[in-house]
Amino acid sequence: MSLSVNFTEAVNNAIEAIKYPYVTPGLFAPIRYTLDGGGKRIRPRLLLAAYLACGGKEISEAMPQALGLEMFHNFTLLHDDVMDNADIRRGRPTVHRKWDVPSAILSGDAMLTMASQLMGECEDSKLREILRLFNDTAMEIYEGQQMDMEFENRNDVSVDEYMEMIRLKTSVLLACACRTGAYLAGASEEDCKLFYDYGIALGLAFQLRDDWLDTFGDPLEFGKEIGGDIINAKKTWLLITAMQEAPEEISDILAEDLENAERIFQVKRTYNSLNLDARCSRLVNSYVEHAVACLDKIDITPEARDFFADLARRSANRTH
Amino acid sequence: MSLSVNFTEAVNNAIEAIKYPYVTPGLFAPIRYTLDGGGKRIRPRLLLAAYLACGGKEISEAMPQALGLEMFHNFTLLHDDVMDNADIRRGRPTVHRKWDVPSAILSGDAMLTMASQLMGECEDSKLREILRLFNDTAMEIYEGQQMDMEFENRNDVSVDEYMEMIRLKTSVLLACACRTGAYLAGASEEDCKLFYDYGIALGLAFQLRDDWLDTFGDPLEFGKEIGGDIINAKKTWLLITAMQEAPEEISDILAEDLENAERIFQVKRTYNSLNLDARCSRLVNSYVEHAVACLDKIDITPEARDFFADLARRSANRTH
Repeated sequence: MSLSVNFTEAVNNAIEAIKYPYVTPGLFAPIRYTLDGGGKRIRPRLLLAAYLACGGKEISEAMPQALGLEMFHNFTLLHDDVMDNADIRRGRPTVHRKWDVPSAILSGDAMLTMASQLMGECEDSKLREILRLFNDTAMEIYEGQQMDMEFENRNDVSVDEYMEMIRLKTSVLLACACRTGAYLAGASEEDCKLFYDYGIALGLAFQLRDDWLDTFGDPLEFGKEIGGDIINAKKTWLLITAMQEAPEEISDILAEDLENAERIFQVKRTYNSLNLDARCSRLVNSYVEHAVACLDKIDITPEARDFFADLARRSANRTH
Repeated sequence: MSLSVNFTEAVNNAIEAIKYPYVTPGLFAPIRYTLDGGGKRIRPRLLLAAYLACGGKEISEAMPQALGLEMFHNFTLLHDDVMDNADIRRGRPTVHRKWDVPSAILSGDAMLTMASQLMGECEDSKLREILRLFNDTAMEIYEGQQMDMEFENRNDVSVDEYMEMIRLKTSVLLACACRTGAYLAGASEEDCKLFYDYGIALGLAFQLRDDWLDTFGDPLEFGKEIGGDIINAKKTWLLITAMQEAPEEISDILAEDLENAERIFQVKRTYNSLNLDARCSRLVNSYVEHAVACLDKIDITPEARDFFADLARRSANRTH
């Protein structure tokens, strides 16, 4: 089965076709708005591609679960935006700004239940395992979000804790997507596990590249201001590493009342003195290599292997 | 199987025994706090009693689903309190007051996923139907909450719309509890349906009695101030009926700048002129009679029938 499918278009068409057969349009308008916001559709694409790579025939067979994970992901974004009091998501007002906080909370709740319903649209023999993985993954993601919030008020976060947080907050859902696609196609337990591990490594590379781009990205390509993480003193891999290796220098800069541009300049100077630009990139690449090593053990065609290897490499080299 | 079980104690013990085997206590403390808040445990009690009434042997077999519905119910209270900006729940600070809004949202999300996990702890052959009913019920409850919020900004709510709102917001979860208990015990589809209908009627009686108590209750027994609904101009059966039958009188009172006691006095005077006290009580009783009529068609022992009939009658006559 060829992987040269336009997954994004297929997913967008399926999202367009979701029926909201209920009597309260006010509950469903924010859901439609959130799903229509675009995004990379990376989770459903991974699920559908893993499904085809493992011998699945028709992507329509795996589409409910692909939509289920996209629905779940968008639910987390919606509720995260309320928690973070964010105004903008994907260039548009967030749901609680366009409507209000109660609508954002309630529509998010409905998205979580709808995600669960979509995940369950599979044959009986696969239902329990699909839901087990989905629910376990959801719990891990809440834990990741909780850790991320707690990090804001801590100055002793270790690199290991940070890596665990991004594994929970970002990686497990990508891993769940890969594994669910493989499982639906009837892949062996070993291949399901390897696809899961591929997703974990992919997610870590993806998130670390995110941190890197926010500080070292090209302003012309990045699409938003460089240095937002520095201004917000966000506990990224870069800041946590610098706090460990140059604690006094970093805490002096953070304590000073500086203009944004000057703060970014001084923090980056410290990062450069520690060679964090190159070290972060090397770490990203090591996760990409780990992801590719997982692929090499999975029983899939060379074409499928290259598809997923390319996807990992592009995540590691993306400029926005 | 005797129904003389202390269901509340069994449920409380099971809640006490819930394991939170995760690394982020900050996520789980609000969940524990919410579940420890008490409440009548009416949903798990209904589920367990229906299970025994229909021939179930050990309530431990149905306890995961009993806890699942109690977890779900408490999740809705937690998120409703954020939406309503409420300060107090069951005599204690609400979660978003004791912690903060992000903790309340995130812990609630985790409760919804945990509820789903608990509902799934049944034999494979029952899994799909249990989850179908649970998820459909959840969606209906969100719709009920949405309708309730929309009613606040409308002055043309009909009695039919109000009854549909309380069916969605309150009744379907009681009905789900009854049906799930019966289903787990292996009751016939007909008996499952009748238990569901019993739960719907019970819920409507319960909620209408709630409305009645807030206006006509005995202040010494009610436990909180009488007239809260009138002061907040809450769209209850009483106010909606009065707005239809004495629209000018009611809108004049609501438009006036009155002291609370005077507003309560004037609205109650209008209610009395329309005989709403007795009419509301008659409506409550008609739902109780409908609930009992459902019981009479179910294949259960006279003892079980009396247990559920008493429960309905006590809901209709409760003073707090």
